[in-house]
Amino acid sequence: MNRAELTELIVANRRRRKLTWAEIATAVGRSKESVTAGCLGQMSFDEAEAAVLVGLLDLPADAAGLLTDPPYRGSLPTDVPSDPLIYRFYELISVYGTTFKELIQEEFGDGIMSAIDFSMNLEREPHPAGDRVHITMSGKFLPYRRY
Amino acid sequence: MNRAELTELIVANRRRRKLTWAEIATAVGRSKESVTAGCLGQMSFDEAEAAVLVGLLDLPADAAGLLTDPPYRGSLPTDVPSDPLIYRFYELISVYGTTFKELIQEEFGDGIMSAIDFSMNLEREPHPAGDRVHITMSGKFLPYRRY
Amino acid sequence: MNRAELTELIVANRRRRKLTWAEIATAVGRSKESVTAGCLGQMSFDEAEAAVLVGLLDLPADAAGLLTDPPYRGSLPTDVPSDPLIYRFYELISVYGTTFKELIQEEFGDGIMSAIDFSMNLEREPHPAGDRVHITMSGKFLPYRRY
Amino acid sequence: MNRAELTELIVANRRRRKLTWAEIATAVGRSKESVTAGCLGQMSFDEAEAAVLVGLLDLPADAAGLLTDPPYRGSLPTDVPSDPLIYRFYELISVYGTTFKELIQEEFGDGIMSAIDFSMNLEREPHPAGDRVHITMSGKFLPYRRY
Amino acid sequence: MNRAELTELIVANRRRRKLTWAEIATAVGRSKESVTAGCLGQMSFDEAEAAVLVGLLDLPADAAGLLTDPPYRGSLPTDVPSDPLIYRFYELISVYGTTFKELIQEEFGDGIMSAIDFSMNLEREPHPAGDRVHITMSGKFLPYRRY
Amino acid sequence: MNRAELTELIVANRRRRKLTWAEIATAVGRSKESVTAGCLGQMSFDEAEAAVLVGLLDLPADAAGLLTDPPYRGSLPTDVPSDPLIYRFYELISVYGTTFKELIQEEFGDGIMSAIDFSMNLEREPHPAGDRVHITMSGKFLPYRRY
Amino acid sequence: MNRAELTELIVANRRRRKLTWAEIATAVGRSKESVTAGCLGQMSFDEAEAAVLVGLLDLPADAAGLLTDPPYRGSLPTDVPSDPLIYRFYELISVYGTTFKELIQEEFGDGIMSAIDFSMNLEREPHPAGDRVHITMSGKFLPYRRY
Amino acid sequence: MNRAELTELIVANRRRRKLTWAEIATAVGRSKESVTAGCLGQMSFDEAEAAVLVGLLDLPADAAGLLTDPPYRGSLPTDVPSDPLIYRFYELISVYGTTFKELIQEEFGDGIMSAIDFSMNLEREPHPAGDRVHITMSGKFLPYRRY
Amino acid sequence: MNRAELTELIVANRRRRKLTWAEIATAVGRSKESVTAGCLGQMSFDEAEAAVLVGLLDLPADAAGLLTDPPYRGSLPTDVPSDPLIYRFYELISVYGTTFKELIQEEFGDGIMSAIDFSMNLEREPHPAGDRVHITMSGKFLPYRRY
Amino acid sequence: MNRAELTELIVANRRRRKLTWAEIATAVGRSKESVTAGCLGQMSFDEAEAAVLVGLLDLPADAAGLLTDPPYRGSLPTDVPSDPLIYRFYELISVYGTTFKELIQEEFGDGIMSAIDFSMNLEREPHPAGDRVHITMSGKFLPYRRY
Repeated sequence: MNRAELTELIVANRRRRKLTWAEIATAVGRSKESVTAGCLGQMSFDEAEAAVLVGLLDLPADAAGLLTDPPYRGSLPTDVPSDPLIYRFYELISVYGTTFKELIQEEFGDGIMSAIDFSMNLEREPHPAGDRVHITMSGKFLPYRRY
Repeated sequence: MNRAELTELIVANRRRRKLTWAEIATAVGRSKESVTAGCLGQMSFDEAEAAVLVGLLDLPADAAGLLTDPPYRGSLPTDVPSDPLIYRFYELISVYGTTFKELIQEEFGDGIMSAIDFSMNLEREPHPAGDRVHITMSGKFLPYRRY
Repeated sequence: MNRAELTELIVANRRRRKLTWAEIATAVGRSKESVTAGCLGQMSFDEAEAAVLVGLLDLPADAAGLLTDPPYRGSLPTDVPSDPLIYRFYELISVYGTTFKELIQEEFGDGIMSAIDFSMNLEREPHPAGDRVHITMSGKFLPYRRY
Repeated sequence: MNRAELTELIVANRRRRKLTWAEIATAVGRSKESVTAGCLGQMSFDEAEAAVLVGLLDLPADAAGLLTDPPYRGSLPTDVPSDPLIYRFYELISVYGTTFKELIQEEFGDGIMSAIDFSMNLEREPHPAGDRVHITMSGKFLPYRRY
Repeated sequence: MNRAELTELIVANRRRRKLTWAEIATAVGRSKESVTAGCLGQMSFDEAEAAVLVGLLDLPADAAGLLTDPPYRGSLPTDVPSDPLIYRFYELISVYGTTFKELIQEEFGDGIMSAIDFSMNLEREPHPAGDRVHITMSGKFLPYRRY
Repeated sequence: MNRAELTELIVANRRRRKLTWAEIATAVGRSKESVTAGCLGQMSFDEAEAAVLVGLLDLPADAAGLLTDPPYRGSLPTDVPSDPLIYRFYELISVYGTTFKELIQEEFGDGIMSAIDFSMNLEREPHPAGDRVHITMSGKFLPYRRY
Repeated sequence: MNRAELTELIVANRRRRKLTWAEIATAVGRSKESVTAGCLGQMSFDEAEAAVLVGLLDLPADAAGLLTDPPYRGSLPTDVPSDPLIYRFYELISVYGTTFKELIQEEFGDGIMSAIDFSMNLEREPHPAGDRVHITMSGKFLPYRRY
Repeated sequence: MNRAELTELIVANRRRRKLTWAEIATAVGRSKESVTAGCLGQMSFDEAEAAVLVGLLDLPADAAGLLTDPPYRGSLPTDVPSDPLIYRFYELISVYGTTFKELIQEEFGDGIMSAIDFSMNLEREPHPAGDRVHITMSGKFLPYRRY
Repeated sequence: MNRAELTELIVANRRRRKLTWAEIATAVGRSKESVTAGCLGQMSFDEAEAAVLVGLLDLPADAAGLLTDPPYRGSLPTDVPSDPLIYRFYELISVYGTTFKELIQEEFGDGIMSAIDFSMNLEREPHPAGDRVHITMSGKFLPYRRY
Repeated sequence: MNRAELTELIVANRRRRKLTWAEIATAVGRSKESVTAGCLGQMSFDEAEAAVLVGLLDLPADAAGLLTDPPYRGSLPTDVPSDPLIYRFYELISVYGTTFKELIQEEFGDGIMSAIDFSMNLEREPHPAGDRVHITMSGKFLPYRRY
């Protein structure tokens, strides 16, 4: 079993056991964002967390080793994602990418927002004209090193 | 003069006049995120806003028409962006794209977060271990129409 | 079984049972356009609809869960489709894409036609010089949010 | 002057003279869809139509020859369009492409919808929950020749 | 069994039974060009023709349904074909593509040669300096519709 | 002036002087297919032919050298051509490429049809249901050398 | 078994039987260059040669038919080869491609070097500073046909 | 003037002065292969060689600096070359790439043929059935370093 | 079993046996950098080293032959790597590639750093603000051969 | 003047003034690696450093603003670099990319080596068998944030 096969198994067993990602995250004891990403093969777990997942999702014994190993990340099968929900995020970069760059640099100087020392939170924002998806991202600013 | 040439002119004149994007946004009277995107050729302005920009940035007369026309959007010269700051956002989609999909659908059902009925806010988040970039996004949830 | 395997099974069983897409749509109780898209892995069904499909097409029990989950959409194996029938639609965008943009913006202002709050209808248009394919599309106009 | 340069000139002069595409189409005497496509370098005009355009849009003398020559068609700079409005049409093919194929073949047999013997009409569809873009397409069905 | 697997089976059984494409075409009663294309998954057959193929090539029962369904066409695994024989045809388009366009339009006006209402014939042309491949193509001219 | 600029000049002057490709070919004394290809930068001319073209199309003196040099061939700006007329030829290779291979090898053995020792003829084929484009190609068969 | 699977089998059995390509070529009675290419699925064999290979490499009975059929050629999985040894040859074309073109045309006129009527020889060239790979290529010059 | 512009100038002046590449190479005092490659922007010259070229080809003074700087190499505008003459070399790698790998490794062990410590010679090989292009390549074998 | 399957097996058995790459390298008797690369299918081993690996990692008998054969190298599934750790190295080339070129040529003249006669060392560099990855590379300079 | 034009000017003036990158770096007071990268448009300078460069390289007044602005980074015109010297570094990632990942994670856990908090040093390593390029890289390890 490789990591991609384990992801398929996790997804199938979650569906069969009718577990939500939020419930899985609560059992693991981390945020729903990082646990979902980990279950989908994008983040690693420590041994205790992996043991919870193996039990909760009825995974085979060698799954624990795969869950604690850092995965080969990247969940897009193509450079430009084809799924409409995921594409909208790509479109935001296409439209706002240069704006991100200008405003971060105006505020912080030359550097980047880390995608590693990073967390995020996704929740429902009630709104009379239709509820909204509310996403908060927080990434450490890293200045280019001068030498 | 086409829109790309106007963008180069805006960037050059902003540098020469030593204006920040925040100052330009204040003069225009909209958020710094949408004004920066508009100056970089990704959003349109109404006639009054365009007139402010023409004066503030010393633009030629026919710039106003270009600023009020909806632009052909898309600020990435390649499918995978090469600038490290912009790439980090692409990496977030690569790593978290399937997580976005699972969590939005878990909360809202089958649909997407709009990238059109959308706003965002980018600011500095002070932190003892190094300040962080804090981004808030809000997009209307659109369910797939059943018919 | 994943969603792609289920699609192959649906296509094979439909052929064996000699069902038309229109007959399947009638049984499900939605339009033939959305039901065909759903059977081909591009739209989701509610539980009652899924139950109808499982019975009608002789699908295994775990198919119902796959049919109600929002699928990872995108039915083109390449950016430019190679099948001549599907390519003609791509060619229409290649030739008329900028026309769509100009005319929608002339009528509505800056925004897009939604591909989510969207429906369509495809039917035969009799014509003495050879019958024609008649397609009607209706998508909600979404203006760019100003903020 | 080549055709791409002429298109830029037409777009600039239309803006300066504050003409809508509908007004230009009325002057030319054809539908707004085909006239807009022609002005944007995707359709050809006959000599009388070209003469109208040269006068109306203040074009140089050699523009008439370019407008009557069949153009090298294709208005997308990339395989996957980056402009959000145009992308939504690409997404419709990505999601509904196989549905188009199944339903056209179910109704007509093996063949395609012509993108050459083709016309379309784009108009506003009033709706209490927000007006909609309504597009009607009509293309001749062409059966594969048996030999 | 899907269509690609059926194609592999047809190719293997043809080799084992030592049938030429010309012999298969004679048995089916159509040209060798369209029968070969059909066997390779690019054209469809009617039910009587499919029955002949099933018997002649020792195919399983469900092959007939696959042979009468219009296939998803496109036999090139890459945009630019790598097989030298097939590449030479691609090279002809690369070198002569603009010539095709100019000469067809000079003779017929604005339009295309149909690849659907199309037939072709491929035969040996004896020549003292080495025999030649002689190909005749005939496609209906389709003028762009004016509207 | 490089070869691409010369091609643009030839096309513009041909339009201004209202010459057909057939008339130019008659003046040069070769087929309209090879002369059109040569004018469009895909074939070379001898010095006498180049002199005819320079006079007929009002070209500058250094054009003759460019016309007699073998050009860097390839007239497609993208791997998959976007112009509908040229695309139809690409589609023919996509659909019939494997058929070309099977039938040429069935007739001749292992080898290719030359695209260098090659000629073609394109003409109108009158037909009651609409005239047809008739193309004849003749390329020398080249067997793979055994060693 | 298809041709790619046969190639894997040939490679595995050659390793197990500890045969060199030169030994296989001697047994077959052709050059090591063409025999290696043929074993790797890039050249065809006659029936006697195929019989030798079937015996020598312990291949199944239907391998002979695959070995005598002209293969679908092309041994690179990507346009730009990733293996360093093969890449160096690609680099030579990248660096010397235009030089090949200029020098062949200076010597022979407008045409190409055939890759079909072609042979080559690869051997060790002893050298005090380190032995060298010595490759000799010989391809027939083919002039463009004038017509 | 950058290197690409200098290459265009060299090509144009060579044509005007009717110099062959062999004559230029003789004047410079190196092989015609390396001098042609250098003139086309793929190899560097020493100062004396550059001075010869500046005089012979009537180049401006700052050309000498560009000719002695190592150039940014790579003469193919696309990954797969479109010019038929250059493509044939690409095809040889596509067909023989794995053969090169197997035979070099059989003779030398694990390593590569250098494309840097490399020379080649291209000449006419007279032949009764049509003269041939004869190319000799010699590249140092470099074994992978073990550590 | 092919090389890719062997790599998966090595990775799985290493995890199961809880061996570090450093421990494997010690057992083999070469650096951890070259042994890890070899286990991942990028370097070859001699027979004694292969025997150690077969024992240590519980590999089947025919693994030894695969481990001593030079592999088809290249460990990136896409041109631009998607895994964030590997991407950072790609980014370094994107940002510093031209700097590498200028500084190596300034020091050594026209040539390259060999990636074949090459070794490297990767270790932890303790640092109060957070430990650092310290990489040392050493590749032989190869001057372009003049001829 | 944009940043790309400024880079061309810097390169040309450096050549004319016969300055080495090391001399420029000494004048600026930073390492030759970061100064060369900055001059080539990949790093930014502070105002004092920019003033030195403007004087030393005879740049126009508005160059200072461009040199202090963070540039849009990325110096490769194609995903896979074509210049042989730069390609060798790409090849190292292709061959050693998975090794970097395994060894960094074995030593540090799940995370990356920063390409922002990064420095490097490139120097000549004398060696009896030919001098070597010696590169030292140091990047901060960044662990994935758990949340």
